Amino acid sequence: MTDVEKLTKQMEFIIEIDKMKSIYRRTKIADKSRLENDAEHSYHLAMMALLLIEHANDSNIDPIKVLKMVLIHDLVEIDAGDTYAYDAAGHQDKFERENAAAQRLFSILPDEQRNELNELWLEFEERQTVEAKFASALDSIQPLILNYLNGGEVWKENNITSEMVWNRNKKIGEVSEGLWLYAQHIIRKSIEQGILQA
Amino acid sequence: MTDVEKLTKQMEFIIEIDKMKSIYRRTKIADKSRLENDAEHSYHLAMMALLLIEHANDSNIDPIKVLKMVLIHDLVEIDAGDTYAYDAAGHQDKFERENAAAQRLFSILPDEQRNELNELWLEFEERQTVEAKFASALDSIQPLILNYLNGGEVWKENNITSEMVWNRNKKIGEVSEGLWLYAQHIIRKSIEQGILQA
Repeated sequence: MTDVEKLTKQMEFIIEIDKMKSIYRRTKIADKSRLENDAEHSYHLAMMALLLIEHANDSNIDPIKVLKMVLIHDLVEIDAGDTYAYDAAGHQDKFERENAAAQRLFSILPDEQRNELNELWLEFEERQTVEAKFASALDSIQPLILNYLNGGEVWKENNITSEMVWNRNKKIGEVSEGLWLYAQHIIRKSIEQGILQA
Repeated sequence: MTDVEKLTKQMEFIIEIDKMKSIYRRTKIADKSRLENDAEHSYHLAMMALLLIEHANDSNIDPIKVLKMVLIHDLVEIDAGDTYAYDAAGHQDKFERENAAAQRLFSILPDEQRNELNELWLEFEERQTVEAKFASALDSIQPLILNYLNGGEVWKENNITSEMVWNRNKKIGEVSEGLWLYAQHIIRKSIEQGILQA
């Protein structure tokens, strides 16, 4: 494949992922004005990966892999849509829907990059490596912080309780004691301030 | 500084940069529905940095530095606002406004990260290194592609001509022949299709 052919495929993919800006999540941005979209969420996680990696329990963590993982982890939602973290029914066929999306989307790219992104995405989904667990911890704590800041309207609409939030976030401790302490602090403040149902 | 103190500062910064989601640029997203914001733009550039680095003329380019640079390059707009690429008056005091913003914003972080982000931002602004030039090339070509896709409404509103677009983008060739050929192709197609004034 010539460089021009590769660039043509890469640009087709780059144009395709503009759709990330129109996939809305079930979390409002901090100022409460509207729901956050996937491009914004992924950007926020990338900045967190850049700044918070020192809080990983395992100092051998690969920071670049975490950064790449958070950048690509939600691309599959271009086809599969956002599945709310607390939507048990939606999670039943989530992997199937997202895997089909990964196959279609990543296949737009030249083979080597298709394979790299697909492997990164699968590694993230499987939550077995320290990098995947750290990326996943960021993916949990970011909406927790936003919900706290925006007054928890979406939590209230969906009858989310502190126990549900606790259960969703407690795995953070496996990869970062510091982030888990911070998450607990936010959960406690949310309960105290009536933002989250005890 | 303890780990908790560092994390507290880092989280304050991470909360502050949520404002990137509310800083609107003078470019519409591909589907024409609305203007793009800085978080989305920075996300898009990060994905381009991840995928297009092989097209740099200089194979010694540091891909991670480019990635970090595009992630942080527009943070200063939280205070300084977006200055339109074709706004000559706005560019007169742009550096002054943005430098003040950099000082305030990056100072929220622990010293080491404050220094790292400030240096990365200055390096980007100075456009002297190959990484800064490549990041800047992505920063030019991304809105070019979006304007082509969205029908160039913002170009038309601002009486932007192909010569202005050409002049803004020609520096891409310094760091990437491939990207510059692609940019020229998009400019030509934009003129042919009446999206851009010849």
